[in-house]
Amino acid sequence: MSKSIKSLAAALALTLSATAMAQQATKPEQLIKWRQSVYQILAWNTGRIKNNVEGQFNKDEVVKAANVIAALANSGLGALYAPGTETGKGWKDTAAKPEIFTDKKAAEAAGNFVKEANELAKIAATGDVAAIKVQQGKLTQTCKACHDDFRRKD
Amino acid sequence: MSKSIKSLAAALALTLSATAMAQQATKPEQLIKWRQSVYQILAWNTGRIKNNVEGQFNKDEVVKAANVIAALANSGLGALYAPGTETGKGWKDTAAKPEIFTDKKAAEAAGNFVKEANELAKIAATGDVAAIKVQQGKLTQTCKACHDDFRRKD
Repeated sequence: MSKSIKSLAAALALTLSATAMAQQATKPEQLIKWRQSVYQILAWNTGRIKNNVEGQFNKDEVVKAANVIAALANSGLGALYAPGTETGKGWKDTAAKPEIFTDKKAAEAAGNFVKEANELAKIAATGDVAAIKVQQGKLTQTCKACHDDFRRKD
Repeated sequence: MSKSIKSLAAALALTLSATAMAQQATKPEQLIKWRQSVYQILAWNTGRIKNNVEGQFNKDEVVKAANVIAALANSGLGALYAPGTETGKGWKDTAAKPEIFTDKKAAEAAGNFVKEANELAKIAATGDVAAIKVQQGKLTQTCKACHDDFRRKD
C-alpha cells in the first residue's frame, strides 16, 4: 500500500466515529424490532389519551402519555430506517413500503408528526380536555397519513 | 331484582369509569406486548448513550435518548403488569417471574429506576460526559437489579 493511500485510509478511519461504527454493528433485524416496538408504544399512549378524553379524564395520565409520544417523536426515529432495513424481520416482517426509504414526502410526514406531538405535550400540560381532544385528533391524522402512504396493508 | 339492589348496581356502574372499562378491555397479550416493546426501547436508548459516552460524544443524541428513557420510566409502567398478565404471550412468552406481581421489592426496584432515569435526563442536559457516564452506570444497575430478581433467565 502506498504511503498516500495509507494516510487516506487512516484519515477515513478517524472520520468514522465510534458511534457510527457501533450503529453499523447493529443488525438490521434489531433496528426493525426497535421501530416496531416504537409503534406499539405510540399505540399504547395514543390509546390512553383517547380513553381519557372520551371517558373519565385524568390529567396526570394524559401528561405522562403525551410526554412519551413527544420523547419518541423527537428521539431520531430516522436512524431506525437505516440502509439495510428495507426488508427483514424484527418481531415480525417489516410493514414498511419501499417508498419510505426513497420518497421525500416521508421526511415531511415525520416532521408533521413531531410538530403535532410536541404541541400535544404542551396542550396536555394545560389540562384543557377539549383542546387536548382536538390536538389528539391532529396527531392521529399525521399517524394515518404516514400509514396510508408508507405502511403495507397486508 | 329488588329496588335497592338495582340502585346499587347503577351506582357501581357509574363508579366504573370509562377509562377503567377501556383498560379492562385491553387483552393481557396486548399489555405483555407493550411492556416487551418498552424494554426494547429502553435497550435501544441506553445503548445509544453507552455508545456516546464510550465513543464520539454527541450531546444532542444523548439528551434525546435520556428523555425517552425518563418519559417511559414516568409513564406508569405498572399498568402493563395488570392482573391477568402473569403468564402469556405478547411478541413472545413473558419473561416476568411470578414474584414481580407479588413481591413488594418490585415497586422499590421500579422506584429506583425512575429516580436514576430522571437524574440521567437532568445530567444529560448539562453535556458533562464524565457525569453522564457515571449516571448511566447507576441507571443500568437498577435495570440489572430488577432483571436479576424478576426476569426469567431462560
